[in-house]
Amino acid sequence: MTSPSELSAEALTDLQEFLAQCRVQVDAELDRLVPAESISPTTVHAAMRWSLFAGGKRFRPALLFAVGNTFAAPTDYLLKSACALEMIHTYSLIHDDLPSMDDDDLRRGRSTCHVRFGEATATLAGDALQTLAFQTVAEDDHLSAATRVQVLSEIARGAGTPHGMVAGQARDLEAESQNVTGNDLEWIHKLKTGALIVAAARCGAIIANADEAELAAISDYAARLGLLFQITDDLLDVTATAQDLGKTPGKDARANKATYPALYGIESARQQAAQIHEHTIAALKPLNRRADLLTTIADYILQRNA
Amino acid sequence: MTSPSELSAEALTDLQEFLAQCRVQVDAELDRLVPAESISPTTVHAAMRWSLFAGGKRFRPALLFAVGNTFAAPTDYLLKSACALEMIHTYSLIHDDLPSMDDDDLRRGRSTCHVRFGEATATLAGDALQTLAFQTVAEDDHLSAATRVQVLSEIARGAGTPHGMVAGQARDLEAESQNVTGNDLEWIHKLKTGALIVAAARCGAIIANADEAELAAISDYAARLGLLFQITDDLLDVTATAQDLGKTPGKDARANKATYPALYGIESARQQAAQIHEHTIAALKPLNRRADLLTTIADYILQRNA
Repeated sequence: MTSPSELSAEALTDLQEFLAQCRVQVDAELDRLVPAESISPTTVHAAMRWSLFAGGKRFRPALLFAVGNTFAAPTDYLLKSACALEMIHTYSLIHDDLPSMDDDDLRRGRSTCHVRFGEATATLAGDALQTLAFQTVAEDDHLSAATRVQVLSEIARGAGTPHGMVAGQARDLEAESQNVTGNDLEWIHKLKTGALIVAAARCGAIIANADEAELAAISDYAARLGLLFQITDDLLDVTATAQDLGKTPGKDARANKATYPALYGIESARQQAAQIHEHTIAALKPLNRRADLLTTIADYILQRNA
Repeated sequence: MTSPSELSAEALTDLQEFLAQCRVQVDAELDRLVPAESISPTTVHAAMRWSLFAGGKRFRPALLFAVGNTFAAPTDYLLKSACALEMIHTYSLIHDDLPSMDDDDLRRGRSTCHVRFGEATATLAGDALQTLAFQTVAEDDHLSAATRVQVLSEIARGAGTPHGMVAGQARDLEAESQNVTGNDLEWIHKLKTGALIVAAARCGAIIANADEAELAAISDYAARLGLLFQITDDLLDVTATAQDLGKTPGKDARANKATYPALYGIESARQQAAQIHEHTIAALKPLNRRADLLTTIADYILQRNA
């Protein structure tokens, strides 16, 4: 079995530099794309920005960049689609935190959107972020219209139902009152977190004009990476502190959420994560390219502590 | 002043036939586009369908069709964009009815989505309808990719912020605790209802390859029509019965909502509606086409009783 300690200090430094660079570019572009707080209606713009600029890791944009870079796409071509994915992710967090959903008060170390701005404004801020995501890609003049509609379709399928994020959230709600099997749980995770991560990776490949075989390999890689991401997320909810997480840990257990540690125990969940990590790396084999960055990202997700 | 009685029985019959035809086509296409209730996650698909197939008038699709027909676009080209607009409209109703927003129990003569399915599922159903709207246009292979991104941009701008529907809803929320002037109210109405109606009309013209001058005239027409639509909506809330409306009348007054009748009185609101109706018709003058259908629609909106 691949040892998680394989990630060298050098590779980690390179990755952290890459992630920091992505974050800077994405944050600057998001700031340009989202209406200023001074523009009326000020409350909804303030709420959109509150959640968007709350110190998110920008993982989905970084993955899109990493895949795009692997196939040598210019950063300019990737930036707006990356921002669109972050807007979709942020809208889903805002709505997920609502009292009727997960009822979370703390996110990324500060008050959630509805705690700060009220439920009505938070609902609208999430709605508007989703809209702006699609507008951003539709109006991205770095890309041909044909590429834009492909990217839009990928993001919509990854975000929607029956094969995307909302389907995962809906199934997760349904599961709260049911006995959840391992298969159910994998399915929920793949949709709830995985689908948008797969969309991010595929958008990077599509913008870079990757061929069909490459796109298939990237989809495979990202599907496994997404599951790995969610299992380590489940584990962190059990093992990390609120300070590390920037959100309330132990929520899953209290909410009786189906998670890998809850279903299999912490040790088995860790073993499964290590195994999925191996499969994630293996999925990159068919690529006729060096995919060091994508490999390092998988290593990093396995070992992350936040 | 143009008399509202100008709408002849014959024109009314023709219009009702046109509207009924639109409704049949749109309903059939929506049924194909939205995942079946039997597909997992079943709750969210049932909730999407509950609100989408609640007997809505399909006014935005009909307007898109009417503008498209005016410029001789084939129905096939118009149908999916029309459905997308109805999905956006329906998502906004679902979220608008939530307890944290307008807290409405009754819509189109039956329980609102959250009353039937719970708040969490209603929130997700609205989210998923918005996503599906954009997916539907992005994947509409009757249209060139260039037309699709134009339509997507129009819908997103009409639905979002700072110049679209969500901006209007957010400003409406802000206004609940303020003294609202006539200008504020016109601005709220133009965004909350008008922007998506303008988008519907413009999408019809864009799909039909209307020229710039025609597009400008259609935008002007639709902006006035949207305001007329909202003022008559305000009036119906005061004057109609629950049975006519299919929703609870008098809600606006009880919620202390800023409306035309509240601000100006019923008689003055009616006079303003009649004046805006005149301007709506006048906006069609620059068109080098017969625009009988668009004229009849304006007449109909002025006189509607539901």
